[in-house]
Amino acid sequence: MGADMRFRGVISPVVVPDTPDHKLDIPSYERSIDRMVDAGVDGLFVLGSSGEVVFSTDGRRDQIIAESRRIIDGRVPLLVGIIDTETERVLEHGRRALELGADALVATAPFYALGGPAECEEHFRILRDELDAPLFAYDIPVCTHTKLSWQLLAKLGREGVLAGVKDSSGDEASFRMLVMANAADGGNMSILTGQELVVDGAYLYGADGSVPGLANVEPYGYVRMWQAAQVGDWATARAEQERLNRISRIFNVTSGVVGYAGGVGAFKTALWLMGIFNSNTMPRPVKALEGDNVDAIEAVLKDNGLL
Amino acid sequence: MGADMRFRGVISPVVVPDTPDHKLDIPSYERSIDRMVDAGVDGLFVLGSSGEVVFSTDGRRDQIIAESRRIIDGRVPLLVGIIDTETERVLEHGRRALELGADALVATAPFYALGGPAECEEHFRILRDELDAPLFAYDIPVCTHTKLSWQLLAKLGREGVLAGVKDSSGDEASFRMLVMANAADGGNMSILTGQELVVDGAYLYGADGSVPGLANVEPYGYVRMWQAAQVGDWATARAEQERLNRISRIFNVTSGVVGYAGGVGAFKTALWLMGIFNSNTMPRPVKALEGDNVDAIEAVLKDNGLL
Amino acid sequence: MGADMRFRGVISPVVVPDTPDHKLDIPSYERSIDRMVDAGVDGLFVLGSSGEVVFSTDGRRDQIIAESRRIIDGRVPLLVGIIDTETERVLEHGRRALELGADALVATAPFYALGGPAECEEHFRILRDELDAPLFAYDIPVCTHTKLSWQLLAKLGREGVLAGVKDSSGDEASFRMLVMANAADGGNMSILTGQELVVDGAYLYGADGSVPGLANVEPYGYVRMWQAAQVGDWATARAEQERLNRISRIFNVTSGVVGYAGGVGAFKTALWLMGIFNSNTMPRPVKALEGDNVDAIEAVLKDNGLL
Amino acid sequence: MGADMRFRGVISPVVVPDTPDHKLDIPSYERSIDRMVDAGVDGLFVLGSSGEVVFSTDGRRDQIIAESRRIIDGRVPLLVGIIDTETERVLEHGRRALELGADALVATAPFYALGGPAECEEHFRILRDELDAPLFAYDIPVCTHTKLSWQLLAKLGREGVLAGVKDSSGDEASFRMLVMANAADGGNMSILTGQELVVDGAYLYGADGSVPGLANVEPYGYVRMWQAAQVGDWATARAEQERLNRISRIFNVTSGVVGYAGGVGAFKTALWLMGIFNSNTMPRPVKALEGDNVDAIEAVLKDNGLL
Repeated sequence: MGADMRFRGVISPVVVPDTPDHKLDIPSYERSIDRMVDAGVDGLFVLGSSGEVVFSTDGRRDQIIAESRRIIDGRVPLLVGIIDTETERVLEHGRRALELGADALVATAPFYALGGPAECEEHFRILRDELDAPLFAYDIPVCTHTKLSWQLLAKLGREGVLAGVKDSSGDEASFRMLVMANAADGGNMSILTGQELVVDGAYLYGADGSVPGLANVEPYGYVRMWQAAQVGDWATARAEQERLNRISRIFNVTSGVVGYAGGVGAFKTALWLMGIFNSNTMPRPVKALEGDNVDAIEAVLKDNGLL
Repeated sequence: MGADMRFRGVISPVVVPDTPDHKLDIPSYERSIDRMVDAGVDGLFVLGSSGEVVFSTDGRRDQIIAESRRIIDGRVPLLVGIIDTETERVLEHGRRALELGADALVATAPFYALGGPAECEEHFRILRDELDAPLFAYDIPVCTHTKLSWQLLAKLGREGVLAGVKDSSGDEASFRMLVMANAADGGNMSILTGQELVVDGAYLYGADGSVPGLANVEPYGYVRMWQAAQVGDWATARAEQERLNRISRIFNVTSGVVGYAGGVGAFKTALWLMGIFNSNTMPRPVKALEGDNVDAIEAVLKDNGLL
Repeated sequence: MGADMRFRGVISPVVVPDTPDHKLDIPSYERSIDRMVDAGVDGLFVLGSSGEVVFSTDGRRDQIIAESRRIIDGRVPLLVGIIDTETERVLEHGRRALELGADALVATAPFYALGGPAECEEHFRILRDELDAPLFAYDIPVCTHTKLSWQLLAKLGREGVLAGVKDSSGDEASFRMLVMANAADGGNMSILTGQELVVDGAYLYGADGSVPGLANVEPYGYVRMWQAAQVGDWATARAEQERLNRISRIFNVTSGVVGYAGGVGAFKTALWLMGIFNSNTMPRPVKALEGDNVDAIEAVLKDNGLL
Repeated sequence: MGADMRFRGVISPVVVPDTPDHKLDIPSYERSIDRMVDAGVDGLFVLGSSGEVVFSTDGRRDQIIAESRRIIDGRVPLLVGIIDTETERVLEHGRRALELGADALVATAPFYALGGPAECEEHFRILRDELDAPLFAYDIPVCTHTKLSWQLLAKLGREGVLAGVKDSSGDEASFRMLVMANAADGGNMSILTGQELVVDGAYLYGADGSVPGLANVEPYGYVRMWQAAQVGDWATARAEQERLNRISRIFNVTSGVVGYAGGVGAFKTALWLMGIFNSNTMPRPVKALEGDNVDAIEAVLKDNGLL
């Protein structure tokens, strides 16, 4: 028993480059994916929250999966987000993703309609029954407005419903209790943290890996931190995390923007300034960062040796 | 100038009957729609929050629009919810709804990804530019987690972006300010309240109509209240509202269920007990009410002469 | 049986004038109270949320009650807020308020420590048992972060614990259900709305009165609206409410301020511009409005004939 | 420069024992404080959220400070919570606490009245100006409903307003950024985590100490974890934290209670079962745990060798 070893380490959630007319920018996409794989990440997670999943039509989702599969070409596992409001819609995304070659599927709690723990549990059970692939629960209450309790997640792991959890709840105590419960149950699940600024702590606790958006900008640091953690070199892990956190200032130096525009907008702008993306275009209705906000991000990148 | 007269009065948001195997139950659907139209409602709104929109696959959405159009057969206007997470996806639903015969489109604020007023404004402007139909903003922060300010809505009405608003925010003060601002601007928009328990007050203030889920169970009272309000008979309007509110106890008498299961679940159970629906089946992953909860709803219906 | 007739109609929540060095400005206070009483309000509520209760030391609370009693001199009833975090502290305020001559006491749900309905119910029962005066529950979840359910409030009214409710929840549907439940129980309680922008609707529903902060600025309109409602003249009630709502734009025209600074700050600035207060000083740590914000409020007052 | 060394390590937030008639139970209080001091804690924090501060009258607050001072008798520093709604009230508590011998003062953001960052900043500046003692900011948004940003806290540390921060926000990323910012500024502040289930991680990041409520039940483990962290023995730190987290199951095994009743209620019940407290009485209006809930806590204590 134990978690599937394919889904451990640094699993980068892939940020998507757009052309100015809102098409998938394939040369930029190839550049960014190749850079992360070459840096040594252990997997790629496409169509996550920062991967424009909820901005993408079904056609665009298909294109992203297909292109990702082509570019990755089996070098690392491909996890695919099948995020949508409720069960039947998620099932449809899941079936398409499997046809297109996903290695694992990642689903959130249902959202928009109000529900509770009973609906969450039933949702994941139905997904597991009807989709033949490792299933990750993606706990992201800032988007879904539902927190998946560690007790429920541990139970679903114990019973074989879930292959793992991506925890972007920001609730570190709950995450810790989940890691402990999973270990006590034999470690069936791969427990990954999405809290990208305190990954060293999560590794110290026993997390199986991380899903840091910032790895799009700086994959090398996350890879070195994981390697350091594997040999118990916590001083190095901490130093790497601190360097990454200084780069994370790209989230704090903008003004007049909120939410996705400032978060994923900062990633895209950094990647554009670094020459990896051809543009920092955002999906409609979000506007790209511009002017002083671009300058402020440029200054952070220079301060940290990325430009 | 002034609001489109087609979209005034009682616009019922249509609750959808399911067969036990989760197909659209067409005979029940015909019975329910015909009953509401015969009762005198002024329009029907399908694929709203209580119309299972976020539970329905695209295929199911198409079926609901097409069947609704067939059954209504032009007797009243058909408003269609094109609810989805972000702009491109909503546009796709909008195009399909227009092909299938919608008379007006109803869209919420974007949701799941975090945004602010700038994203909301841009979203509605894009929808209006690319979809050739009257557009209603549907303000339902309990589902979208974004409140559309009355100032933004009034501005979008003044500029011809919005044909109307369905306000399910529960923020009566904001609703009132919107009604006043719209009137001061010439009454371009049709301002409809979704706050089904205080509709008489909204009519007194000058609301153009209501979108009460409870009209699925008791359309006659809502029609009589609207007629009373048209002639300024506020005592009758209040008496009708109070009778409807006693029926609304179907929301308060259940236990062990939350959100959609208890709200739309109560509607479906009442309609089933009343012989209008063949089943009270809920969309997955939600379970139908059963046992004591069904008995409790039956008692409310009997107390109010509906059984 | 039935609600105590002393506590019906327009009960003004009294805004407190401060000298520039943060003392109670007694001449301004006399001017404001006399103006409201002369305008015909039916009662005064001191030490409410807009009456600086949580900014006031115990000594200042005592002074406010004593001065209020002296100035009012029995012309209208004096309701006193005994707002504090938990039961024992509230009891101490209640005993002092009764010694100083309060006619009724007004208490919120407990706050700061997390609790639930059981703690709320026990809290009001203890207050009623140990304080010999009519007790009002003040439902203001925006401050206490707890919503008192209409079912609990109705039960406490039925059992004689509560003499009334001041509902500042903004939840109009819940308010309506409470009014109906209280009426069905014999009308023991006086149910007052704090939702100052839709008071006409509340009167239509059967509310026993209102507690509008805006009555500090414009008491005459609220008095006329109550009088119109008493004789069923809903057109006049609506017209008065709409005029008051245009004055309420003082809340919307400021920028760069949030919460108390913009809300009570607007009241104080208006009263200062109108010559009723000598200053618009706010309690520490809140800053008074200044510059463009003062000008913007002045423009609203001029537009509405108050300057 | 650098943080005051008196305020580093394990600072226990002291849970208060009550007699069945709601008086301070002094023999129990002596037993518990002596046990924690003997175990080697580095300081005690009285009148915190779990120390019944908001349930205590001013007289009771004075008694707790005086008795704490007498019992501690200089063995460790005494930090005193001066928690109240707004500035003037907090200042009064601060003056009393200093008269009674507090070594440092701990204040939250203002609460109840709505405010923003400007009010928070002014609040702490006034407190520092008028109270001559080291001042800690206590960030506990679950109670105050305001998050103190790490940028504001770092600024107030840099300027000498704050001597430290007790972070009970549960926002580990923000905590980490604060620790880094404080270090970059010379380490003026003592940054303490109140997130008691992931203290080992916080120590790895460079936190100056912790304020774990669970140290009332099991101080030895927290002391050993701090000692291990001081010498970089992270495996031991993790093992101690995991053992403590198994004891924390006392929060998860109760049913039918919420908030304070279940949290501090579990502490008091454990201490009572362990013979340290004479009773598990809670402050009004909260009820003590009883029946199955007591048995469930007893089972957790037995499983972990505490009974």
